[in-house]
Amino acid sequence: MTTHAISPTRAEDYPEWYQQIIKAAELAEVSAVRGCMVIRPWGYGIWEGIQRDLDRRFKETGHQNAYFPLFIPLSFLQKEAEHVEGFAKECAVVTHHRLELKDGKLVPAGELEEPLIVRPTSETIIGESFARWVESYRDLPILINQWANVVRWEMRTRLFLRTTEFLWQEGHTAHANEAEAMDETYKMLDVYAASLEEVMAIPVIKGEKTAGERFPGAVRTFCVEAMMQDRKALQAGTSHYLGQNFAKSSGIKFLNEKSEIEHAYTTSWGVSTRLIGGVIMTHSDDDGLRVPPRIAPHHIAILPVVPKDETKGAVFEYAEKIASALSHSSYGGEPLRVHIDKRDMRGGDKAWSWIKKGVPVRLEAGPRDIDSESVVMLRRDKGVKEKEIVKLADLSTRIPIVLKEIQDNYLTQAKTLLTANTIDYIKNFDDLKAYLTPKNEEKPEIHGGFILAKWSGDKDSDAPLADLKATIRCIPFEQRETEGKCIFTGKKATMDIVIAKSY
Amino acid sequence: MTTHAISPTRAEDYPEWYQQIIKAAELAEVSAVRGCMVIRPWGYGIWEGIQRDLDRRFKETGHQNAYFPLFIPLSFLQKEAEHVEGFAKECAVVTHHRLELKDGKLVPAGELEEPLIVRPTSETIIGESFARWVESYRDLPILINQWANVVRWEMRTRLFLRTTEFLWQEGHTAHANEAEAMDETYKMLDVYAASLEEVMAIPVIKGEKTAGERFPGAVRTFCVEAMMQDRKALQAGTSHYLGQNFAKSSGIKFLNEKSEIEHAYTTSWGVSTRLIGGVIMTHSDDDGLRVPPRIAPHHIAILPVVPKDETKGAVFEYAEKIASALSHSSYGGEPLRVHIDKRDMRGGDKAWSWIKKGVPVRLEAGPRDIDSESVVMLRRDKGVKEKEIVKLADLSTRIPIVLKEIQDNYLTQAKTLLTANTIDYIKNFDDLKAYLTPKNEEKPEIHGGFILAKWSGDKDSDAPLADLKATIRCIPFEQRETEGKCIFTGKKATMDIVIAKSY
Repeated sequence: MTTHAISPTRAEDYPEWYQQIIKAAELAEVSAVRGCMVIRPWGYGIWEGIQRDLDRRFKETGHQNAYFPLFIPLSFLQKEAEHVEGFAKECAVVTHHRLELKDGKLVPAGELEEPLIVRPTSETIIGESFARWVESYRDLPILINQWANVVRWEMRTRLFLRTTEFLWQEGHTAHANEAEAMDETYKMLDVYAASLEEVMAIPVIKGEKTAGERFPGAVRTFCVEAMMQDRKALQAGTSHYLGQNFAKSSGIKFLNEKSEIEHAYTTSWGVSTRLIGGVIMTHSDDDGLRVPPRIAPHHIAILPVVPKDETKGAVFEYAEKIASALSHSSYGGEPLRVHIDKRDMRGGDKAWSWIKKGVPVRLEAGPRDIDSESVVMLRRDKGVKEKEIVKLADLSTRIPIVLKEIQDNYLTQAKTLLTANTIDYIKNFDDLKAYLTPKNEEKPEIHGGFILAKWSGDKDSDAPLADLKATIRCIPFEQRETEGKCIFTGKKATMDIVIAKSY
Repeated sequence: MTTHAISPTRAEDYPEWYQQIIKAAELAEVSAVRGCMVIRPWGYGIWEGIQRDLDRRFKETGHQNAYFPLFIPLSFLQKEAEHVEGFAKECAVVTHHRLELKDGKLVPAGELEEPLIVRPTSETIIGESFARWVESYRDLPILINQWANVVRWEMRTRLFLRTTEFLWQEGHTAHANEAEAMDETYKMLDVYAASLEEVMAIPVIKGEKTAGERFPGAVRTFCVEAMMQDRKALQAGTSHYLGQNFAKSSGIKFLNEKSEIEHAYTTSWGVSTRLIGGVIMTHSDDDGLRVPPRIAPHHIAILPVVPKDETKGAVFEYAEKIASALSHSSYGGEPLRVHIDKRDMRGGDKAWSWIKKGVPVRLEAGPRDIDSESVVMLRRDKGVKEKEIVKLADLSTRIPIVLKEIQDNYLTQAKTLLTANTIDYIKNFDDLKAYLTPKNEEKPEIHGGFILAKWSGDKDSDAPLADLKATIRCIPFEQRETEGKCIFTGKKATMDIVIAKSY
């Protein structure tokens, strides 16, 4: 029997496996502040990789970064509260601006005239600026992105997937007409899908949310949905067409080409550190994390093998030689990220620390490798002991090829999982129920996966899904234009939908 | 008489000139939230340039980025309050975690058992993680940096220089002994000085703060001080050696090589969006901002000159040709950042918008330039109408040279200002007073500048500076080892100090 580095394994206890992966790979930890996480360097490095790719794509599509206040005056939300029912009320409220020592104890003082909310999202505060920036159609479009922290007071939290504070980007744009705003909404969903597939190696289904799942205040909400290894869906990103709703409450008005005053058409779109949770649950195995090379903080860990202390100098020198052999190579348009691990610890422990962190390639080199001018290469997409000897002279050309193979393998595996666990399609509710019901009561996470079905679109007809803890994830863009039977009502229906349990 | 784009000019009203530069260059604006600013794309682009350079230097010196919670439990600060007198008490206090609708009005609800503070700096919350991460000397050093927003409730705010919320980076490190921690403290001050001089073109004086100016809880505080055009000092960055003080209150303990339990030796160091204020006040003139090329969001603005509508297509096409001629050139190790301004506005207004924004190079091209296969180049370091005709074929080699010249010119000018307005040195307090007293009462900002003097080091002997609104900025690293007379006490003294008014 094979033993694994992560206990429990995925099959034994998926939710606990997830927590153990995060711990073993040193990605993040629970902090002393309720619901807030500490993102450790390896986890933050993955976020930097995701940021680099998205930021480049945002700029290539004409967006500029800017920064808006952390705080939102209560009165701004009051405006929303009047016409947005689903208004998010769980948030951090700042009521004082000073601490005073009273009998040796610090207490809040200096009560604010108007409480401030720590932003849960920034439509209102950004809208206030847009209203100042826009006068005529010539000032449009405004294409802004913000990288920021946001706070939503969550009762039950889970590292990366749902935390009180998280990091994200929020795009906010204003346009002169509906067509341009809709183009933007679709375009940014495509940007997310491309980054997820090409860089995070996560295949996604693009689609539209049903009315009940829309962002409060949005006219239309679009999403990319990914399948995790427990076959649950993860909403990986959303893009909203807000119509004139937010422009009206924020007063974003402009003089159109006909010299009439009109409200702008706005969009917003975002992804967050939740994507790191998606990377973990898509690619990791029972030995730890596997990071797709495109977003790996290091592509390569060089592990000097030092059997005797007197060889240490020569081996460390050789390790530097290996690193410099790679210094002019690149992968995915970026220079190779190479790390030499000089820590003083047992070779086996050191190798396993990198397996658990999921570094794509390990290069081991000891005294014998110096003589043969070669290195021992181990890939995270292969067996932990599967070695390939590479000549130092070939390394700079071999490594980029290997990284590409690893990236491609991860994507292929994820695509296979998605296809194998999507049922196409279920025609009646009993079959759906059976598909979503775990075969083993003790392992509720093991069930069928995604379901393709037909829907009549009738309001609340999907209510029976609640008992199964499933939802309509989206109305996929890929529609077959065939006629069938609505899974809920039995009526004739042409619309295809995707149903799944989700995070 | 020459007219200028910015009114008032520096000589007329320096503080108001500063505000007008920010407005004209579209760098930032006051938000609806008291004391918080909106950083507009051009201002944020400059911050991204500063970040890129610093982040590279941090990583080259072995640091890793991570992210810690925005909130700090009140009890964490209570620990500090007990032994840190100068404790910063002006901060945002979160007391509730919900909003409820009461009679149609949103009101705070869900009172927290323990109030949370929005981080003014993160020593305590990061220390809590360090305490978990460190067990033995083998776990040290820990070299962490965080890019984050922080909040300090300021009564009087000024865009970039002093705002309630600002963006910064905070380095936090833990070491096994004092020597290594001190090395780190000096090293990061050097990193700041190098980035300021080489990239922001801001010459600085490196030195140590006096006991009275130390960061609360620090054993030693070091700083880089820059001279603004009104001859006031701007503290551009600080680096603190914290000894074992913070390790003791956070419980960062480790087993040293002698197997004894010891508290770690920590450092912290930071720079903020205040640096953008420094860039403005160092380089701008009466026509607007001048951005050093190394941190310019665009190096080059291409301005198509379209005298008649029917030439538009050809001119725009030529503009693209110019951009692609530059697409393989680089400056400062980065690809050229080129922007084609296709806005529909008067040529003069368009040119002035870029002069005010301080883009290093403008390239104008109209129908005649297409025929001659050339462009008209205008540089922000020269007169607004000083033109140079450059052949398209020469552009890719000419531009990097020009950018380097502009960068160098800005640094030279800033160095000249610093040297010309530093008096070396003043021996008695009356001369110091005269030097710091404005010649014209209506323009209190026009005074002498920096003063080099001798100091005996006696506690509180520098108190008379308070009346002049001046301080000892630092004890510069460059000490002459000569003997003189203390400017305050008249005693024999060898220590050189720098005195100035400051932001």
